[in-house]
Amino acid sequence: MSQETEPEYSEGDLRNTGMALKHDREWDYELERIVDAVADRNATKVGLQFPEGLKRRGPKVADDLRELLGDEVTIMLSGQPCYGACDLDTYLMKRTDVFVHFGHSPMKNTDKVIYVPLFSNVEVTPIIEESLQTLEPPEEHPEIGLVTTAQHMNRFEEMRAFLEDRGYEVRTRRGDERLTHEGQVLGCNYASADVPAPQVLYVGGGKFHPLGLAMEHPDKHVVIADPVNNVVTVADTEKFMKQRYGAVHRAMDATKWGVIFCTKIGQGRWEKAQEILDGNDDAYLITMDEVTPDRLRNFDMDAFVNTGCPRITTDDGPRFHKPMLTPGEYEIAIGEKPLDSLEFDTFHGTW
Amino acid sequence: MSQETEPEYSEGDLRNTGMALKHDREWDYELERIVDAVADRNATKVGLQFPEGLKRRGPKVADDLRELLGDEVTIMLSGQPCYGACDLDTYLMKRTDVFVHFGHSPMKNTDKVIYVPLFSNVEVTPIIEESLQTLEPPEEHPEIGLVTTAQHMNRFEEMRAFLEDRGYEVRTRRGDERLTHEGQVLGCNYASADVPAPQVLYVGGGKFHPLGLAMEHPDKHVVIADPVNNVVTVADTEKFMKQRYGAVHRAMDATKWGVIFCTKIGQGRWEKAQEILDGNDDAYLITMDEVTPDRLRNFDMDAFVNTGCPRITTDDGPRFHKPMLTPGEYEIAIGEKPLDSLEFDTFHGTW
Repeated sequence: MSQETEPEYSEGDLRNTGMALKHDREWDYELERIVDAVADRNATKVGLQFPEGLKRRGPKVADDLRELLGDEVTIMLSGQPCYGACDLDTYLMKRTDVFVHFGHSPMKNTDKVIYVPLFSNVEVTPIIEESLQTLEPPEEHPEIGLVTTAQHMNRFEEMRAFLEDRGYEVRTRRGDERLTHEGQVLGCNYASADVPAPQVLYVGGGKFHPLGLAMEHPDKHVVIADPVNNVVTVADTEKFMKQRYGAVHRAMDATKWGVIFCTKIGQGRWEKAQEILDGNDDAYLITMDEVTPDRLRNFDMDAFVNTGCPRITTDDGPRFHKPMLTPGEYEIAIGEKPLDSLEFDTFHGTW
Repeated sequence: MSQETEPEYSEGDLRNTGMALKHDREWDYELERIVDAVADRNATKVGLQFPEGLKRRGPKVADDLRELLGDEVTIMLSGQPCYGACDLDTYLMKRTDVFVHFGHSPMKNTDKVIYVPLFSNVEVTPIIEESLQTLEPPEEHPEIGLVTTAQHMNRFEEMRAFLEDRGYEVRTRRGDERLTHEGQVLGCNYASADVPAPQVLYVGGGKFHPLGLAMEHPDKHVVIADPVNNVVTVADTEKFMKQRYGAVHRAMDATKWGVIFCTKIGQGRWEKAQEILDGNDDAYLITMDEVTPDRLRNFDMDAFVNTGCPRITTDDGPRFHKPMLTPGEYEIAIGEKPLDSLEFDTFHGTW
């Protein structure tokens, strides 16, 4: 589902062409760090967790590790769905001596997990060069915010230097403790974009991150430079807002509310859930790890409030059989907050 | 998917009519037992888990409990999928003072869980009367085995008395420790049908239980008396065998095998998984709780062996993108066992 207004496709725009630059990536799995950890801990069980898009690399990484570690070490691949650093397979983590989470940076300092971030090797400067035509020029607005996702974090200083060379004053910050790096954003946390600048450049792919960013910072001009699809767009929240207001309005007549508490280690907001329950006799607490349409279909509810991952609510929302709202949208639907208070659901702090 | 050869529909057969006797059921949720446990343990958090078919009753049961317990006690509904006593929501169990599992009988003695079996109030003697026409008469074979599922267990003595009145010598046994009651069967355990009798009467619904029963006891005439759909059939394993051989043959050319270890408390067979891994360099261990087609699609495997619930393998098998075998079928596919050794995958013992 498209949530931004799509511009005309320009020359070189690789979206939906099957030619996105992904195939150029050679990930560095940092096998030596893993081998060292196995030696340090005399490990006999090693657990590996990959995000969905990289799961098919799992067997090859397991093969390489087996070659390095020998047959005495059992390698276990997590089959649990994984969409972020908040999505740790705690079962496997507790039952292995070394547990490796690929593709994300740590959300919390912990010795238990080896995070291997898997940086992209896609060049970022060509698309930033192109974004200059969409950004306000430095002569008018020299201050610019700069943010990116974990996978392009290794090029952050390159991005900054490029913009400074063009005359911008680059404003960055680390955000809160949920974020590992200066300038990093998550789908649920844009604290690093909270800088004194009228515009922000987001370097990265996907729609969810820049959309949240634009919702969280409606006063800023948010430009998206996507190095993988080789395209520059401006974050447009209008379509998204319509979809969300649609869900809020459909939920206004709800009598029975299912309040979802997500049991994943990085996604639980217990106080939020408890607060809703305390204020509404027709609200029922439902606990689960994966929040899916199938799992909720069997519950006889008129609407749901999801206190877990906002991405499920907003990206997957239309797939649920009943309206699925964020906690803020719930307050609007029951009349506790005015209609125009709608905002993006974000998580701050660690779990 | 139909796994038995369907007979012509006879008068009164309620299958696929939407008129099955389910709507007559009034479950006894044993609320007083729950209230007592809350008082005994000074509980402030109560977790409720229902099987899929009964999840929509959850909010009503929660309402009734709230009325009895007051606002000081928080009621939490498990949103995790649940298909049997092996399928405990251990997250919710650990985080509540009283945890109630509805719809099944205990698979293990434990103080932690209150099991409320939810017995059906559907009459069983009319359909057993009808089954007499399909059973061998007592004059020829007086010995008969009798088995049923947890939900009809409350009528077991009635069933036995009815058959004895008709001249049968009813042979029953408790089976192993996975089974709570004499004469009870599970979808993965038919030890209670292991009695000296040439025929077995299964009283209950569904296709999976009697099919496993007939596979596990190929020497016996297995008659199914389904009191809910009001129909008598004979268990026929032929269609089922064809489907399973189809999966085995499709897997024979597999190079990369995914070996699934299910992390659900009642479904893990670690030694089985380890044995397969030890014997096959091209086998990769994948750990997960829910075993679904979506979760396995991202793994680059040619075939899977499921050491978890056999029902997933055999009932849902055709929905997976690659052949999914039981551990026994795997041995046939890799040539370690002859083709004719195919059998139903069963679990014995507790977890």
